[in-house]
Amino acid sequence: MDFFTLLAQDSKARLGQVATAHGSFETPMFMPVGTQGTVKGLTPDQIRACGTQILLGNTYHLTLRPGDELVAALGGLHKFMHWDGPILTDSGGYQVFSLAGQRKITDRGAEFRSHIDGKLLDLTPEKAVDIQQNLGSDIAMVLDECPPGDADEPTLRAAVRRSLLWAERCRTHHSRTDQSQFAIVQGGTNLTIRTECAEALVPMDFPGYALGGFSVGESPAAMHAALPECAALLPTHKPRYLMGVGRPEDLLIGVAAGIDLFDCVMPTRSGRNALAFTSTGTLRLRNARHRRDPAPLTDDCSCYCCKHFSRAYLHHLFSADEMLGPTLLSIHNITYYLNLMKQAREAIREHRFSDFMQAAMLRLSEPAIMGQS
Amino acid sequence: MDFFTLLAQDSKARLGQVATAHGSFETPMFMPVGTQGTVKGLTPDQIRACGTQILLGNTYHLTLRPGDELVAALGGLHKFMHWDGPILTDSGGYQVFSLAGQRKITDRGAEFRSHIDGKLLDLTPEKAVDIQQNLGSDIAMVLDECPPGDADEPTLRAAVRRSLLWAERCRTHHSRTDQSQFAIVQGGTNLTIRTECAEALVPMDFPGYALGGFSVGESPAAMHAALPECAALLPTHKPRYLMGVGRPEDLLIGVAAGIDLFDCVMPTRSGRNALAFTSTGTLRLRNARHRRDPAPLTDDCSCYCCKHFSRAYLHHLFSADEMLGPTLLSIHNITYYLNLMKQAREAIREHRFSDFMQAAMLRLSEPAIMGQS
Repeated sequence: MDFFTLLAQDSKARLGQVATAHGSFETPMFMPVGTQGTVKGLTPDQIRACGTQILLGNTYHLTLRPGDELVAALGGLHKFMHWDGPILTDSGGYQVFSLAGQRKITDRGAEFRSHIDGKLLDLTPEKAVDIQQNLGSDIAMVLDECPPGDADEPTLRAAVRRSLLWAERCRTHHSRTDQSQFAIVQGGTNLTIRTECAEALVPMDFPGYALGGFSVGESPAAMHAALPECAALLPTHKPRYLMGVGRPEDLLIGVAAGIDLFDCVMPTRSGRNALAFTSTGTLRLRNARHRRDPAPLTDDCSCYCCKHFSRAYLHHLFSADEMLGPTLLSIHNITYYLNLMKQAREAIREHRFSDFMQAAMLRLSEPAIMGQS
Repeated sequence: MDFFTLLAQDSKARLGQVATAHGSFETPMFMPVGTQGTVKGLTPDQIRACGTQILLGNTYHLTLRPGDELVAALGGLHKFMHWDGPILTDSGGYQVFSLAGQRKITDRGAEFRSHIDGKLLDLTPEKAVDIQQNLGSDIAMVLDECPPGDADEPTLRAAVRRSLLWAERCRTHHSRTDQSQFAIVQGGTNLTIRTECAEALVPMDFPGYALGGFSVGESPAAMHAALPECAALLPTHKPRYLMGVGRPEDLLIGVAAGIDLFDCVMPTRSGRNALAFTSTGTLRLRNARHRRDPAPLTDDCSCYCCKHFSRAYLHHLFSADEMLGPTLLSIHNITYYLNLMKQAREAIREHRFSDFMQAAMLRLSEPAIMGQS
């Protein structure tokens, strides 16, 4: 089976399928984030019941704790966390830039201090490959340098130069045949630099390509404006992954631009903070207006949370600081994200994605509803 | 159907069945504690999958938050928390004595300050009945005064006098026909006072009887010594409930003494603190010796945690402070407690409870194993 099969296209939006050593998943697809070998507060059974087809794991966190060699000795990340579906791991680069203590970046790699115990660590392109091969993810990412999205041109150019150097070393060092390695196009919102970066990476013939640096600081408007042209820089016959994005509306705009794959902590992090996503905007469950409300979060969701619990109960759980609140809202939010992608896939298949997206965006932004949370 | 059916007896150990408006449960039985309308960190599906047949809810916590009238307006505690099996609620008395801020106890009832917001509250026997009728539990407890287990005789006598007064008022005030009210025998480890209390309560003909005050401070040895005689004070044709007890060995000794029903926060609280119960003693999952261990918690458990996860993974979850650790260990510990009761029931049915108990106690106390955690 081909790694990626493009099944249908509706304007720029694409319907596809990715085949991995741990099964296939459909695209457009959203990946819930399992940073430390667990999607926070959910069992693998619950993750699966949300409709999850592929998970994301974080190289930076897992190499720090419990250690990728330990995970390998225990049979790999799938077995360790009891998830037998596909897993994508990032390279750790983004976390080195956003989480680590003092760091020193050279062409050789990144030296940084662990945010857990302050230990001095080292992440070279080769090390990033080794770690992900130890974890045994189905899709691995090359190490890249992530400058802030609003960085000036010289900074962006320097980061792209180094990222290209690292991508080549990652490609050369990679050896697992049951793992596909994706390249990452950087360049911020500067289309010239993005183009140069993509033009250098595409001939290296990676099985998939990602757009990096879009979750790091631009305004959503700047990202939305840049996305169609950036996505067009990536090969059409390979999966395209927009890293670390985003809100439901960002996913729709990404799909419209021809993106296939997304990940974001938003559904789980928001769930832990009592924020629920619905097709008509967000609900803040700590708000006292939910205290006596027997209605479910939404009428159009069949997740475990919406099927069995009232807003009043969820409000109570968050008021009483009960763990079940974050669990139930994470279940709902992941289900919401995955349903949105499922609806997008159906719309693409039926060549009505533009209408679907317009209606969905309109509902999400209805002012009367925006005020409801 | 009779409320309580005694199915078999093996020496003093009893096998029985209790029929409630929300279904039947077998005895001896352990009740997981759902203090605030949730067994911490578990969905009702997970609670059920542990083998749970009846839950305990806490009147004190639920009347403070979200409020019993609100729960009633939302259809009762079963619907609120989506648990359609039997629920027993305590009367709140124990929590007033152990949790509330400043308090004033008179024959009229207890005045106390909420531990949540310092609000002045009032718990009379009638109020304790009303609250539990609002919650709609299947089994309700009378309000009692809980003196410390090592209290002197005058204190014990005064508490029993007041508890008898309150029991009578609770009995009179109670009206829900789909709810059974249990009396509570107090008196610490003083058998004379326990006898007087029981002799006053038994003629009031409650559907069930509890032993209170055994979790409050005595040494386990004193409780074990007092239990057989105390249990014998309770009617044989009604369920006997030992409140707030205890460790696995305490449950076995309780069953041997003729107790039918137990509750304790130990399996869930221990689970959140990385302590796992096994048939050969306890395991502390934070201990570094588990870091690389691919084995499950135990080989003789078929719970979701033992079926799918290694000690190494559990160690990692607790090291990384991940919510899934407490959830998985709570699942295991509840399953362990309920399996212990299931094995006890089978042993009683087959008239080999004494052998079963001796073997179980021996395994639990093996010194080589005790040191293993």
